[in-house]
Amino acid sequence: MSFNTYGHIFRVTTWGESHGPALGCTVDGVPPGIPLAENDIQPWLDRRKPGQNKFTTQRKEPDEVRILSGVFEGVTTGTPIQLMIENTDQRSKDYGDIAQAFRPGHADITYHQKYGIRDYRGGGRSSARETAARVAAGGVARKVLESLAPSVRISGYMVQMGAKGIDRARFDAGAIDQNPFWCPDATAATEWAAYLDELRLSHNSVGAVIEVAATGVPAGLGAPLYAKLDSDLAAAMMSINAVKAVEIGDGMAAAALTGVENADEIRMGPNGPEFLSNHAGGILGGISTGQPVICRFAVKPTSSILTPRQTINTKGEELDLITKGRHDPCVGIRAVPVGEAMMAAVIVDHLLLDRAHTGGVRGRIG
Amino acid sequence: MSFNTYGHIFRVTTWGESHGPALGCTVDGVPPGIPLAENDIQPWLDRRKPGQNKFTTQRKEPDEVRILSGVFEGVTTGTPIQLMIENTDQRSKDYGDIAQAFRPGHADITYHQKYGIRDYRGGGRSSARETAARVAAGGVARKVLESLAPSVRISGYMVQMGAKGIDRARFDAGAIDQNPFWCPDATAATEWAAYLDELRLSHNSVGAVIEVAATGVPAGLGAPLYAKLDSDLAAAMMSINAVKAVEIGDGMAAAALTGVENADEIRMGPNGPEFLSNHAGGILGGISTGQPVICRFAVKPTSSILTPRQTINTKGEELDLITKGRHDPCVGIRAVPVGEAMMAAVIVDHLLLDRAHTGGVRGRIG
Amino acid sequence: MSFNTYGHIFRVTTWGESHGPALGCTVDGVPPGIPLAENDIQPWLDRRKPGQNKFTTQRKEPDEVRILSGVFEGVTTGTPIQLMIENTDQRSKDYGDIAQAFRPGHADITYHQKYGIRDYRGGGRSSARETAARVAAGGVARKVLESLAPSVRISGYMVQMGAKGIDRARFDAGAIDQNPFWCPDATAATEWAAYLDELRLSHNSVGAVIEVAATGVPAGLGAPLYAKLDSDLAAAMMSINAVKAVEIGDGMAAAALTGVENADEIRMGPNGPEFLSNHAGGILGGISTGQPVICRFAVKPTSSILTPRQTINTKGEELDLITKGRHDPCVGIRAVPVGEAMMAAVIVDHLLLDRAHTGGVRGRIG
Amino acid sequence: MSFNTYGHIFRVTTWGESHGPALGCTVDGVPPGIPLAENDIQPWLDRRKPGQNKFTTQRKEPDEVRILSGVFEGVTTGTPIQLMIENTDQRSKDYGDIAQAFRPGHADITYHQKYGIRDYRGGGRSSARETAARVAAGGVARKVLESLAPSVRISGYMVQMGAKGIDRARFDAGAIDQNPFWCPDATAATEWAAYLDELRLSHNSVGAVIEVAATGVPAGLGAPLYAKLDSDLAAAMMSINAVKAVEIGDGMAAAALTGVENADEIRMGPNGPEFLSNHAGGILGGISTGQPVICRFAVKPTSSILTPRQTINTKGEELDLITKGRHDPCVGIRAVPVGEAMMAAVIVDHLLLDRAHTGGVRGRIG
Repeated sequence: MSFNTYGHIFRVTTWGESHGPALGCTVDGVPPGIPLAENDIQPWLDRRKPGQNKFTTQRKEPDEVRILSGVFEGVTTGTPIQLMIENTDQRSKDYGDIAQAFRPGHADITYHQKYGIRDYRGGGRSSARETAARVAAGGVARKVLESLAPSVRISGYMVQMGAKGIDRARFDAGAIDQNPFWCPDATAATEWAAYLDELRLSHNSVGAVIEVAATGVPAGLGAPLYAKLDSDLAAAMMSINAVKAVEIGDGMAAAALTGVENADEIRMGPNGPEFLSNHAGGILGGISTGQPVICRFAVKPTSSILTPRQTINTKGEELDLITKGRHDPCVGIRAVPVGEAMMAAVIVDHLLLDRAHTGGVRGRIG
Repeated sequence: MSFNTYGHIFRVTTWGESHGPALGCTVDGVPPGIPLAENDIQPWLDRRKPGQNKFTTQRKEPDEVRILSGVFEGVTTGTPIQLMIENTDQRSKDYGDIAQAFRPGHADITYHQKYGIRDYRGGGRSSARETAARVAAGGVARKVLESLAPSVRISGYMVQMGAKGIDRARFDAGAIDQNPFWCPDATAATEWAAYLDELRLSHNSVGAVIEVAATGVPAGLGAPLYAKLDSDLAAAMMSINAVKAVEIGDGMAAAALTGVENADEIRMGPNGPEFLSNHAGGILGGISTGQPVICRFAVKPTSSILTPRQTINTKGEELDLITKGRHDPCVGIRAVPVGEAMMAAVIVDHLLLDRAHTGGVRGRIG
Repeated sequence: MSFNTYGHIFRVTTWGESHGPALGCTVDGVPPGIPLAENDIQPWLDRRKPGQNKFTTQRKEPDEVRILSGVFEGVTTGTPIQLMIENTDQRSKDYGDIAQAFRPGHADITYHQKYGIRDYRGGGRSSARETAARVAAGGVARKVLESLAPSVRISGYMVQMGAKGIDRARFDAGAIDQNPFWCPDATAATEWAAYLDELRLSHNSVGAVIEVAATGVPAGLGAPLYAKLDSDLAAAMMSINAVKAVEIGDGMAAAALTGVENADEIRMGPNGPEFLSNHAGGILGGISTGQPVICRFAVKPTSSILTPRQTINTKGEELDLITKGRHDPCVGIRAVPVGEAMMAAVIVDHLLLDRAHTGGVRGRIG
Repeated sequence: MSFNTYGHIFRVTTWGESHGPALGCTVDGVPPGIPLAENDIQPWLDRRKPGQNKFTTQRKEPDEVRILSGVFEGVTTGTPIQLMIENTDQRSKDYGDIAQAFRPGHADITYHQKYGIRDYRGGGRSSARETAARVAAGGVARKVLESLAPSVRISGYMVQMGAKGIDRARFDAGAIDQNPFWCPDATAATEWAAYLDELRLSHNSVGAVIEVAATGVPAGLGAPLYAKLDSDLAAAMMSINAVKAVEIGDGMAAAALTGVENADEIRMGPNGPEFLSNHAGGILGGISTGQPVICRFAVKPTSSILTPRQTINTKGEELDLITKGRHDPCVGIRAVPVGEAMMAAVIVDHLLLDRAHTGGVRGRIG
């Protein structure tokens, strides 16, 4: 990964600020011959789009994606795909009072210190708006998966809001799209709605934990030691705004297990090896096992809140700051499609990297 | 990061297997003129070295590092530094019975599936022995820090073994070197010793959580969006064998906080901005704030245990496997100096990357 | 360099096809605080622009560049700069007859073989039109040089058209802008005009040699061994469409020299070392000496000619093909600003890379 | 390419100095299952080895390569291959008088200026001795080609020494190994021997042009626009010590051709497209055509000569310098196996990159 690019072969370079004329990304390394059109990408952007309900920012961005290059007569040509999303709802005036002051929890102060200049309008480059470009790239990745590894299914959902986790016994994949939180536990979703309403009205916000599961991932993806599948996933998820932790499989809880408990025992099934459990989250030694790849990440609470917080400005003066504007009380909600997109991009990248390195040949068992 | 290389400018390429003639790394991008000798690196290797007490593997590897290039008359020349550690205690016979069988929790099965061949002796490339090369590279990184950012101090320690965490109220930096667990809580260390003895005698093992803190890190290191300091730390730590999760600052716990709680409020101190708390772990928007950079990672329990576990072999036959050999009951212990080394490498890398991008100039406050 | 990206720190990713809606590039790694506006870039594009005289293609592309990101209040912010040029004069119908046939000398056949699909309109991605993006990026590079190394001057010019070289004794920098060939020898330029007219009327084309000189380049840029300044220049120039050779300093002629002749002897001048000659082209061991950096490259004749040439089509049928359309009889002419742009980008990249590696400190002499 | 690494997927990192304990390289990205042993590599090193006749340096380096990792039971495992060559004939005393003085034509002055320190013994890192590591890596690349693209044949030879070119009409591949110059024209070789004797006795040296031809390269290798096969070859060859120019196909001579002459016309042969000429050197639009890939490079004369040349030392004092020691009168001779090695590495790298991007599928013709 370099400054604004991720991926080894399937390489995504994002660009753009919250309040500039447009933002987008170049997706390079896409295999030729993949069917692709704007309407393959738009639905994923629509999932991430703000303004859909009272729990996400009321900014009204249509977030319409345009393909500017790399597709000809409906299929990819193997050349770079440029995706552009114009910024249409730029109410810059909302941000005037933070031009000189540093919002606590935001990148304002670090951008200022590092660069000496920052586009303060809506966070500029550090705005969560950048994740629209990730989601667009994820849409391309999903189309590649359809062609190259159609068994792969990627699903993200929220498993914890604030201190309130879901009940895994009530996990219902069908519920995920039925509530504003992408929550697989309908009962929890109802509680969260009330909880979040309360937080919003009290000028507060809250964090969340997102889980992204990829099933049908073939065994053999990932590469020791510094291009491990889990290492790349960790980098990808941690690069999302507001993410503070990444877990694979049992994650932090693995620390509390014994070796006897943690061993994912192996039996021989009709189609090859089968594991009796999945503490590993589908990855051993950095390489996929064929089990579901399970990744979770924690999103901190929205830093933009209407409760005044102590801070300073560029002159070094101390002040109390309320962050006005239209902000999500739980940015974790919109991080769900972003996490899915990053998972899709990392898996495609490793599919391509693997066929470079091994040609896709696999060691036999049985 | 590519297959066996990490870093943007300070680039480390590791090589070698557990039971080959040697292992090591090439450290490229080291600035010229840095004093460096074997005895700057050896002490860090000695910290990681197995066989030091009953809680780590009884393999007796002297782990003596040799500098083969890149240093002339006691200082670095700016050319690649080759560090080689010869493998001397190679009791390959211990591993004969796992040549065809896949140890649960190990990379045996995934290496076999991906590559069709694997060096089964001691795990080959997937052995924790590779981390010796990381620690050696970390020794070089620390010398660079001494010259370029002498304020930086890096300290790793274990904060949880199995389900037993330390009591932060008893945190004593002086205790870290006084027990076999690099534990900053002397009381906890005593409990852990008894606990681990019990586990070892019952042919079991356990996981751990390691924390690495870097103080004195200048503000402004890291780069949005895909070379964020936290993103690179996540990749670096997740690439260590057996690591299943990485946290920055409050990590997973950030999900349970509200925005009011999570805001690290800012005041003006005599030497510039001061934060009233450090939920962020010293990183905002991927860029260091000047506060301590705090990173934690969870290490799963040692998979090599003497308790039989169900598995299969390359023929697809099912069997029960005991992993004989000389294994750490808690690999987390030896992960402490490894985590420190990765932190040092990432910080140096970002120091160099930052002076490329900004020339080291900083935006003024006050 | 990866598929569509060049540079280590100053990284340029180009995208777009000849007849798509737009093309452009993302320029990443630009230091913050550099003054930049569209009108800093546009003049360089205007130099490259087709349709300026009868010796270049009569396509009328205004080639207006828009900055979509990375600049705020007139200066760069350190975030990626997106430059977009809309394609306005897309007469796709001209290209209908080459949709299935492979134009000799063009990438038609290799794109078809590699990708199975190609955007045949105007060469698609392989069109010389892509070089507009390079020139735009070069405009950014020049602005960075103005701030970081204001002594650097970059000048490109044509030193040979077909078999007709300039007379170095008549070299006049002032003449370069005074003729349609960027030729520093006014007499040669007059001859070339007649020669090229004749070629054009006989439905033929011709090659050229371009020289790019950079003066004022500080000593110490470049890095052994695979990021040598000359190695990066060679890659950069060879990546330009139709380029078949790259020379540094005496280039191919160095083969015919003896060691006594070739030694650039060194004397001590008032401001440091001075060389009595510059056979090396300003680069020793991959690192700049402080002398002018001299790079030449050969451009093959335009492959699109009105003289029928034998070829085949995708069905394997043999045919004779005339390449209609509006083509330069000597593409070398428009390669001049492209070569300058690549030189500027490579030098800026090495300035940044050098300050990463050495901090810009220099060994003393005297 | 980064400081000391080249390649996208097949990545070679070289390390070591002329007079350090050892030098070598890490070859990463090698596919698993490739048969490999020291004696697959040693013959190529023996071809490059000094001291074989009076026309190459009389240093007696056995240049014995050891494989330290990445190979198990005779085949590659997909993990990094470490190749080490110990330096045994280190007569450092020969170099004492150049510790402070800068040899004209050498990297002494630029290393000093850039790094402030240099290993002056034998040129240190800038010694042609580094090319031994390249040749070793090339041996690995050739073994990969044997498995993945057995049709590929790579042959290097000298086509010009000083001003004396071969007569292409006398080209005899069988002659190449029969003279000390790898010259395909036996008559020229005889003349060259006398010429070089004379130069050597008069304390002089001379340059050369090397051609490397790769036949049997499948169509479709290379990738627009900045990973073009020719762009990567240019970088690879220009990174070799003393190389000043790189040509593909007709190279510089392409400038003098007309479009009618330069068109490599295409006919349909029994096995697919056939070209009637190969001005392009087997590459169109950066992608291989299936024709022989032809690359030439010019090597400047050996800078280490016994004729005194004017120079300065670190104190800025002017002096006349004779470079004693054991030096090749024409370093171009030993560049032949180096050029072959770089060609092999670049082709393997692009084979792997291509199967990542396209899966090796090819567009049909006919």
